[in-house]
Amino acid sequence: MEKTISFLKEHRETYLQELIDFLRIPSISALSDHKEDIKKAAEWLKNSLEKAGFEHVQMMPTGGHPVVYADHLHAEGAPTVLIYGHYDVQPVDPLPLWQSPPFEPEIREGRLYARGASDDKGQVFMHIKVLEAILKTEGKLPFNFKVLFEGEEEIGSAHLDAFVEKNQELLAADLLVVSDTPMLEKGKPAVCYGLRGLAGLQIDVKGPKSDLHSGNFGGAVQNPIHALVELLSSMRDQEGRITIEGFYDRVKPLSEKEREEFKQLNQDEERLREELGVPSLFGEKGYTALERTWGRPTLEINGIYGGFQGERIKTVIPSEAHAKITCRLVPDQEPDEILSLIEKHIADHTPPGVTVTTTRFDTGRPYMTPIDHPAIHAASRAYEKAYGVPAAYIRMGGSIPIVETFVRLLKLPVILMGFGLPNENFHAPNEFFTLENFDKGLDTLAYYWQELKTALS
Amino acid sequence: MEKTISFLKEHRETYLQELIDFLRIPSISALSDHKEDIKKAAEWLKNSLEKAGFEHVQMMPTGGHPVVYADHLHAEGAPTVLIYGHYDVQPVDPLPLWQSPPFEPEIREGRLYARGASDDKGQVFMHIKVLEAILKTEGKLPFNFKVLFEGEEEIGSAHLDAFVEKNQELLAADLLVVSDTPMLEKGKPAVCYGLRGLAGLQIDVKGPKSDLHSGNFGGAVQNPIHALVELLSSMRDQEGRITIEGFYDRVKPLSEKEREEFKQLNQDEERLREELGVPSLFGEKGYTALERTWGRPTLEINGIYGGFQGERIKTVIPSEAHAKITCRLVPDQEPDEILSLIEKHIADHTPPGVTVTTTRFDTGRPYMTPIDHPAIHAASRAYEKAYGVPAAYIRMGGSIPIVETFVRLLKLPVILMGFGLPNENFHAPNEFFTLENFDKGLDTLAYYWQELKTALS
Repeated sequence: MEKTISFLKEHRETYLQELIDFLRIPSISALSDHKEDIKKAAEWLKNSLEKAGFEHVQMMPTGGHPVVYADHLHAEGAPTVLIYGHYDVQPVDPLPLWQSPPFEPEIREGRLYARGASDDKGQVFMHIKVLEAILKTEGKLPFNFKVLFEGEEEIGSAHLDAFVEKNQELLAADLLVVSDTPMLEKGKPAVCYGLRGLAGLQIDVKGPKSDLHSGNFGGAVQNPIHALVELLSSMRDQEGRITIEGFYDRVKPLSEKEREEFKQLNQDEERLREELGVPSLFGEKGYTALERTWGRPTLEINGIYGGFQGERIKTVIPSEAHAKITCRLVPDQEPDEILSLIEKHIADHTPPGVTVTTTRFDTGRPYMTPIDHPAIHAASRAYEKAYGVPAAYIRMGGSIPIVETFVRLLKLPVILMGFGLPNENFHAPNEFFTLENFDKGLDTLAYYWQELKTALS
Repeated sequence: MEKTISFLKEHRETYLQELIDFLRIPSISALSDHKEDIKKAAEWLKNSLEKAGFEHVQMMPTGGHPVVYADHLHAEGAPTVLIYGHYDVQPVDPLPLWQSPPFEPEIREGRLYARGASDDKGQVFMHIKVLEAILKTEGKLPFNFKVLFEGEEEIGSAHLDAFVEKNQELLAADLLVVSDTPMLEKGKPAVCYGLRGLAGLQIDVKGPKSDLHSGNFGGAVQNPIHALVELLSSMRDQEGRITIEGFYDRVKPLSEKEREEFKQLNQDEERLREELGVPSLFGEKGYTALERTWGRPTLEINGIYGGFQGERIKTVIPSEAHAKITCRLVPDQEPDEILSLIEKHIADHTPPGVTVTTTRFDTGRPYMTPIDHPAIHAASRAYEKAYGVPAAYIRMGGSIPIVETFVRLLKLPVILMGFGLPNENFHAPNEFFTLENFDKGLDTLAYYWQELKTALS
């Protein structure tokens, strides 16, 4: 193992340059203009996997963007590990807020700035490089490995469910490893045992058939923006509790034990407040910020638009107004059921004088697993070797909807061991990856395969 | 007079082509990119006035876009008439909804489509042409005339108040004529005796210092869009009544007499509903649509924006959210006082976890005049000669803030006689001017100066 660790250190600068190349590809899955970029990123991965020594490397079609599959199945008698990650990234707007362009990676003060640096290209890349280094230094891998990298994670893994369902034999494994979850904070690694689910909806409000002069018609007709505002406002009370009937019905309450464990993590809410730059934290009464983000569901308005957005004023009653909302869900909420509840709420609360239509976005179930698996403890030990402190067991507010699908269809345990930090601006301008975690992360993964070998033998 | 009417008919096609030239200039006052176009439109007017025989034709600077002034003061002993109009136009977005480009005028089915065709370039143009025709056919004008065309009406006449105040001597007159108000409907001309005032505000909500991942932070912080939605929703009840404390305090109730007069106008609400393409009309309980648009104040959200507006979804908690609102005011509401009430409401209702700032836009007082002036009755008779039916006396939901300034500073009666129709898409895509009213309007104005002569002598 020490040979591998040394090898990783020696090649650190080359690897970093390779990652920077990867990050230059604007593989934004949400925007159809970037379809070719998505393909380019998949091809980049394919080449990288071939170079690393993987076999059966291929881009496999889905109903949407392709997945990249590869394997290395020469550890006879050993278990098979499936590694999952994604090569697509979030959109970059508002672009003017980026200090350096999102697809021109730049290193500043030990941070690599670029869209996807941390979420998730950096982490996908590390997995490839560690296995390449082991192959080069040891001549073989301790397990049979399969890797599956998708291009639609940031748009809800629209076609991966069907892909996994269809390719269960190809993907069959004993363990799934995913690096797409954050560490607790700088210097505090974490293994994640719970993810929130996701359910999204677009709301379109239609009023008059064309924009109207607010003088000539103001008072005669419903204003679609006002109708939308009223509708959205009716979905949450002033304390942040969602008021959609039935929304909390299936929410599993946080156990006293879990709340105590969260408390032990000692989240500094004042520091969080300061980091986020808000006058105060906000959310459902009776819960800490950690409990709210890990263990309670939300309904967020991700975007709203209607009428005039230019300089100064335009005295118009617009014809339309729009909003995009997503819910983060916790066990045992069912995404489709939640969307139905919201649609019913909208139907029941549509203000007079407008029509409202909705469009569902792809959904994902919440996920939670017991933390007593030996592969989880092995992860904790690997982190400890690289970071000098034991890993915390945490839940995560984000969603990796496909995790629940893998578990359900492939019937295997999942190890969520990530190297991102919560402050790395995922989905926001100035996303970055902390290079300390690039270095220690490579080591951690190398140690992990060793620890896992011990744990499973 | 019949000579003038014939002359106008003979030159109708030439005039129409000239107007089309004028409409090609994209003189959008709200957008700084169009500053040169505004100047071009002012120069176009200057040339047109010189050609018509006006004197002292000049572009006069203001703090913003220039005004165009000209006069013809050779009717010794006769009263002086001041004609006011505006050569600036509204922005054109959403551009894709225009059937023909807004600045490439096109005639379809007796309608001239272009931004500004009806509001207000077409009507400004008609005034020039009628006086030009009288000069050419009669050799002299029946009154002393001054014209003042401004370039900032669509942005609240930001600098005209100061200009009028400074140039009271230059502008001194016995009567002000304005053609910027709509007729009641096709074939039903109207003289307007009341205008609503205007007060506008931009609301900017600031939350976290940058956009956040809705998974990692959803539940921990206030969402600026949600805060904005809550704030805006608190300003109006579900029946359309504004809930800002003190908003209605100074509103002069509609008299029973006026309500009866409105009723006589027989507005067909079902036809209006159908024309606007809404499932139902909407507004303050206890009033007809006409009463609500002419005699009751409003608060409209003209624009809202924040977060992700692209395809599909982006799971973001945005850093900011914004709205633009304007109120239409009725006597005796004071715009500045109304803005203060709204600002106080915002301060009192700002949700926790965000900061809210506001920016005021220019304001205008509401205006109402008694209808017993002989110049008003002369207008009614002129309309009757051209249209075959007497003019109705109406109020208007729109605002021409400068009217109140003229009345206050120059101490003269105002005749609001317009030729637009309420369905001509002012401020909206596909603005048009009904050519029937171009033709009959030219005749009406020619008759008007004759009728006015009789009325005042």
